[in-house]
Amino acid sequence: MKLGMIGLGRMGANMAQRLLADGHEVVGLDAQLMPRQAFEQQGGQSVESLRALLQQLPAPRVLWLMLPAGAITQAMIDELLPLLAPGDTLVDGGNSFYQDSVRRAREYAQHQLNYLDCGTSGGVWGLKEGYCLMIGGERKAVEQLTPLFQALAPAPDRGWAHVGPPGAGHFTKMIHNGIEYGMMQAYAEGFAMLNKKTEFELDLHQIADLWREGSVVRSWLLDLTTSALETNPTLAGIAPHVSDSGEGRWAAAEAIALDVSAPVITLALLERLRSRETDSYSDKLLAAMRKGFGGHDITHK
Amino acid sequence: MKLGMIGLGRMGANMAQRLLADGHEVVGLDAQLMPRQAFEQQGGQSVESLRALLQQLPAPRVLWLMLPAGAITQAMIDELLPLLAPGDTLVDGGNSFYQDSVRRAREYAQHQLNYLDCGTSGGVWGLKEGYCLMIGGERKAVEQLTPLFQALAPAPDRGWAHVGPPGAGHFTKMIHNGIEYGMMQAYAEGFAMLNKKTEFELDLHQIADLWREGSVVRSWLLDLTTSALETNPTLAGIAPHVSDSGEGRWAAAEAIALDVSAPVITLALLERLRSRETDSYSDKLLAAMRKGFGGHDITHK
Repeated sequence: MKLGMIGLGRMGANMAQRLLADGHEVVGLDAQLMPRQAFEQQGGQSVESLRALLQQLPAPRVLWLMLPAGAITQAMIDELLPLLAPGDTLVDGGNSFYQDSVRRAREYAQHQLNYLDCGTSGGVWGLKEGYCLMIGGERKAVEQLTPLFQALAPAPDRGWAHVGPPGAGHFTKMIHNGIEYGMMQAYAEGFAMLNKKTEFELDLHQIADLWREGSVVRSWLLDLTTSALETNPTLAGIAPHVSDSGEGRWAAAEAIALDVSAPVITLALLERLRSRETDSYSDKLLAAMRKGFGGHDITHK
Repeated sequence: MKLGMIGLGRMGANMAQRLLADGHEVVGLDAQLMPRQAFEQQGGQSVESLRALLQQLPAPRVLWLMLPAGAITQAMIDELLPLLAPGDTLVDGGNSFYQDSVRRAREYAQHQLNYLDCGTSGGVWGLKEGYCLMIGGERKAVEQLTPLFQALAPAPDRGWAHVGPPGAGHFTKMIHNGIEYGMMQAYAEGFAMLNKKTEFELDLHQIADLWREGSVVRSWLLDLTTSALETNPTLAGIAPHVSDSGEGRWAAAEAIALDVSAPVITLALLERLRSRETDSYSDKLLAAMRKGFGGHDITHK
C-alpha cells in the first residue's frame, strides 16, 4: 500500500522504515529537514508540506499520524479535515487521550472520513521486533489497512488487533501504560532493596540476569533492566527524576471515573511526581510539625 | 550425583523428577504414601524415615529440603543436625525467611556442616522449563553441588547463580516475590479497568494475548494471565480472595528495616489483606462517620 506518515520522529521514522521493508510505499512528512533527509536515505520519499503529501497519495488516501499527543496532534487533525475526501482514512498512532479519539472519530465520520485510534507499544525496539498495535474504530477501515498492521506487528497474525469501537484502541493503550508504570515501580523498589542490603554485596546485574531464566518475574522490562545494569551498574550520571507523558495520569483518573480501585497504578504515578519534588513542601511541613509537638530537630538546608 | 530430597510435595516431586531426568540418583523422603508411590513410578527411590534416607546416601551426604517454611522446616533442620557428619551439605530450597537461613547456616557451620539457602522460582512450570535458583552460602559447597544446580536450572549456564553469603539466596528470593506481588497487582488493576469499561465490549483474553507480542508489558505473568482468561474469561467460580505465603510481608518489613521506601510492593501486600476482609471494620466505621457528620445514609446488611 501507499501511505503518508505524518511525523518522522523516533517512532514515526522507525515505523515508516518497517513499512518500507515490507514493500509498502511511504511518503514521510516532517517540518524538520534532518528527519526527512534520514528517511530519504532509507529509501523513503519525503515532503515538507501537507498539501504536497496529499498530492502524492492515491485515493482513497491513507494517512498515519505519529505526533506528540495533545495540541500538536489536534492542530494536524483540524488542518487535515477540510483537505481530505470521503473514504480517506486517518490513523492516530500516538498516545492520544481516548476520549479525544472518540470525539475525533465522530467528527471525521460526519465527513465520511475513516478515523482509527491505534495505540502503539514497542518504543525504539519496535523497528526490529515489531510493534504491538491496539486498534479502535470501524471494522471496514481496519480491514482496509490490514496489510499495514501486519507489516508493523511482530508477525502478520500476532501483536495487532482490532479491540473495539472508536477510542477503544487508545483506551487499551492507556491501561497498558498504567500497568507498565506499576511493573516498573515494582522492579525499581525491589532493586532498591537489593542495592541497600550492602552486607550481602549483591551483584544487581547478576540477579537481574538470573531472574530472566525460569523465574516468575521474567519479562521484557526485566531484560531492559538487565541491560541498563550491565552498561551502568551504579546508575552513574542518572538523576533520580522520572518524567511521564500523560497516560499514567489519565489511567489514574479513569480508575476513579470507573469506580475501580487501582491503587498500585495510581501510586506508581504518584511516585513519579514525588521523584520530581526537589524541595518538597509537604516534607518541610512534616518536619515543622514534628518540631512543634515533639521538639524534634529540623534538618536545615 | 546421589542426593536425598526431603519433601515430595508439588515442588519437591517435580524437582526430583528433573534431577532424575538429568541422570542423578534421588532418594525421596515423604511422610505420605502417595507421593512416595508416585515418585517410585517415575524411577526414583523412596523412603519413609530420615534414618533410612541417611543410610542410603554416600558420604559426604547431600540433602535437599523442599518443605513448607517455618516450623516444619525448622523441625527437620533440628532433627537432622545430630544425624549428619562433617562435610555433609543441607540445601533449603523452600521459602524460608532469610534471617532464619543466616542463623541456621551459622549453627550448621559450627558442626562442620554445609548449609545453602536456595531461593527457588518457577512453580509448577519448573519441571518443564527449569527453575530459577538464587543460592546463598559458602562458595565451596556451591561448587560441590554445581551439577545439581545445572540440572534444575533452565540451562546449565543460565538461571542459577551463587548470589552471596548465607542468607543472600533467600533474601534475593524474598525481593523477587515482592516484585512479583507488585507486578501481579498492576496487571490485576489494569484488567479490572478493562473489564469495567463495558461500553467498549473489550475481549480481555484478546487484549492479554495481543500484549504478549511486541508490547512493553509482555512477561511470563502475562502469559499465565492470558491462559487464565482463555480458560475462564469471566473468572467464574473464583472467589476474590488472595492468599499469601509470607515473602510479601517479610519484604514490606525489610523495606522499612532498610529505610527504603517500597510503597508499591507494600501496597500490593495490603491489597491481598484487603481481599480477605469480608466484613471490614474500617469500612463500617467510615460509613458511620459519614452518617455522623453529613447525615449520609448507611447501607444496612
